[in-house]
Amino acid sequence: MNIMELAKIAKKTSINLAACDTATKNNALKAIAEALEKRKVEIFDANKKDIEAGEKSNLALPLLKRLKFDDNKLNEVIAGINSLISLPDPVGETLWCKQLDEDLELYKVSCPIGVIGVIFESRPDALVQISSLCLKSGNAALLKGGSEALNTNKILTEIIVEASTNAGIPSGWVHLLESRDDVNGMLKLDKYIDLLIPRGSNEFVQYIMNNSTIPVMGHADGICHCYVDSDADIKMAVDIVTDSKTQYVSVCNATETLLVHKDIAKEYLPLLKKELDKKNVSLLGCTETTKIIDVDLATEEDWKTEYLDYKLSIKIVNSLEDAIEHINTYGSGHTDAIITKNESKAKIFMDLVDSGNVFWNCSTRFSDGFRYGFGAEVGISTNKIHARGPVGLDGLLIYKYKLIGHGNIVSDYSNNIKTFKHKMIDKEF
Amino acid sequence: MNIMELAKIAKKTSINLAACDTATKNNALKAIAEALEKRKVEIFDANKKDIEAGEKSNLALPLLKRLKFDDNKLNEVIAGINSLISLPDPVGETLWCKQLDEDLELYKVSCPIGVIGVIFESRPDALVQISSLCLKSGNAALLKGGSEALNTNKILTEIIVEASTNAGIPSGWVHLLESRDDVNGMLKLDKYIDLLIPRGSNEFVQYIMNNSTIPVMGHADGICHCYVDSDADIKMAVDIVTDSKTQYVSVCNATETLLVHKDIAKEYLPLLKKELDKKNVSLLGCTETTKIIDVDLATEEDWKTEYLDYKLSIKIVNSLEDAIEHINTYGSGHTDAIITKNESKAKIFMDLVDSGNVFWNCSTRFSDGFRYGFGAEVGISTNKIHARGPVGLDGLLIYKYKLIGHGNIVSDYSNNIKTFKHKMIDKEF
Repeated sequence: MNIMELAKIAKKTSINLAACDTATKNNALKAIAEALEKRKVEIFDANKKDIEAGEKSNLALPLLKRLKFDDNKLNEVIAGINSLISLPDPVGETLWCKQLDEDLELYKVSCPIGVIGVIFESRPDALVQISSLCLKSGNAALLKGGSEALNTNKILTEIIVEASTNAGIPSGWVHLLESRDDVNGMLKLDKYIDLLIPRGSNEFVQYIMNNSTIPVMGHADGICHCYVDSDADIKMAVDIVTDSKTQYVSVCNATETLLVHKDIAKEYLPLLKKELDKKNVSLLGCTETTKIIDVDLATEEDWKTEYLDYKLSIKIVNSLEDAIEHINTYGSGHTDAIITKNESKAKIFMDLVDSGNVFWNCSTRFSDGFRYGFGAEVGISTNKIHARGPVGLDGLLIYKYKLIGHGNIVSDYSNNIKTFKHKMIDKEF
Repeated sequence: MNIMELAKIAKKTSINLAACDTATKNNALKAIAEALEKRKVEIFDANKKDIEAGEKSNLALPLLKRLKFDDNKLNEVIAGINSLISLPDPVGETLWCKQLDEDLELYKVSCPIGVIGVIFESRPDALVQISSLCLKSGNAALLKGGSEALNTNKILTEIIVEASTNAGIPSGWVHLLESRDDVNGMLKLDKYIDLLIPRGSNEFVQYIMNNSTIPVMGHADGICHCYVDSDADIKMAVDIVTDSKTQYVSVCNATETLLVHKDIAKEYLPLLKKELDKKNVSLLGCTETTKIIDVDLATEEDWKTEYLDYKLSIKIVNSLEDAIEHINTYGSGHTDAIITKNESKAKIFMDLVDSGNVFWNCSTRFSDGFRYGFGAEVGISTNKIHARGPVGLDGLLIYKYKLIGHGNIVSDYSNNIKTFKHKMIDKEF
């Protein structure tokens, strides 16, 4: 079947999936977890083929590492599924109820979005994670993984499809797309696909965002900042910036640029450098910075760059306002932190920095669905609508309005025979 | 200034506007209402010029009517502003607070989206309505009205700018775009504009949706249905369908297609026709319908058409499932109603019809922000993300996460020195 036909089936199935009850969905998740465990030898064999082919074609070591699906990864995805089972069903929740009139009740009820298109690169565990999130939230899914993981993805999808449909989930709710052309095909199917979630390199996500009329959830860049204010606790500022930069460098919430208030720079920067030298972080700085510590000169390009590496650009600023202006100009709206003992400055920073996550006296690395306690993470969004910051199951939901009357017609209200009450009541439907 | 420069100013101003306190925003709204009243002669004079030019260029009567800005319209927009003032400030609300650890608190706080681009056709009252909604919700606005209303729009914008900035709102928060090229210019400015709200003809909205990478909120079509079930109360079904079709025909929530269960069609359709004949509604029907009442034969095209006129297409269906299937195939996800005495059928209909508004035993015409009691209406959305159905102030808001620590670093948690608590607490920031 071609991508259009698969998308049509997914759309059609999504209607019935949306109405699936909680027990059926949880049983299906349980069945998937069990089947993954039971058929793990098949999965590992398929993954071995992918790894061998990757090695033959000289795939870079980090990619090979992501491609690997072993006992550890299996246990992680099974733990993820079990944690999803324990979460309340997010579908069908009455968000509020309002009496429009005595015999006319309006219910705002949560429901799935419909069909989610997920495009991810080499990690096969992402396939299990995202399809189980879609199942719990009642969304159909079209999955396109990296071609280097095709054998692993195929067997994982086969297991998920078989276990879930045997457990009563309507068949056709999840499909694996296999060809590279399918990605471009997906981007055009705005009639059938309601939301795209791309996971992968920045260039890749940017490409998806620029080439589809389907809403895209995600982030292209993670250019995060720490701002060390003149009122900072110096020791705390060293610890937080070191953690923000080096705790894990290849992720979107790692800090890429440090802003330092001019009044504290001379005292602070040498201490920070001493700490970062231990971790072999290469430093670049503005002209003022180079007068204090021995670092290369940063260019305009550095302020716009997500290094994802042991590398940090440093700029000395004259004021809190300049720091905020720099972040709003060069940042990516992801995560930015201020280190200060001054509460009112912290509040100004958090109000005026236009990012999904604004932190006071803690590491930018906290910006993450698991650390936020969302249980499962769909991704981190730098969108300004729908879902922002780390996104949990909530991001896969929307709502519908259910209005229940007893023959009510609008002309009675426009002719003032009846009047609206608009009274919130505590009722479910 | 060109559109890019204006958009940059709006983006920059939006940061400070987002942090404006409630009193300043409400005082500015009050000042706008007073200035509109005080300078109404200027407004009416400008509007007279537009009307005269419109008459000269043979503008259609409904357009001339929409273009008119008189005492009635003035009173309406002033009443709208006053009702906005009375609403609570939607910005800065702590949606929830969670302790990640004893000294690490996460706040989810509502905030404005940023810069809203609004493109509307001939109605100048829309300009006042949308800019006051943006102001209350702390969003900057780029407004592009129809060229036929340019004189009226200019004076209205001048008044809004002057009154609001005198009242302390940062200048540069609202701009009127004057040339037609500005519309296409706006569509490309995804770096500065966060959301587009087009209001106008279906073709126009569709054009915007197809030609911008900026998220668009709105609806292109309103193909709404009534389904009269075999268990319907016949009298109620006549009243509801008559109201849904004829109470106001040129709006998106008017019913365009009637679906009737085969077991009730013979009894129901003649009674309905009698009622609709009184209102001069022209009827088209499927082959089965033509065997019962004297109507023209509908074509496939009719099921996809939004008439916005005294015209109704009728189809006889074999089952509830067929009705749902028809709506999900031909509908636009706007508003669809079932008329039945059978609760379980109503529930199935409301769960399986994939529309923003699903109604039981009431008119589709209730689908409206004012009738839902939202106070002010941004528009009606058929999107599947962010905001669906009638959209009030809520649709102009998003949230940010504020994380407040005391020197917390991630390595303490990944090294198991500390563990997350993830405890919801009742606290504001």
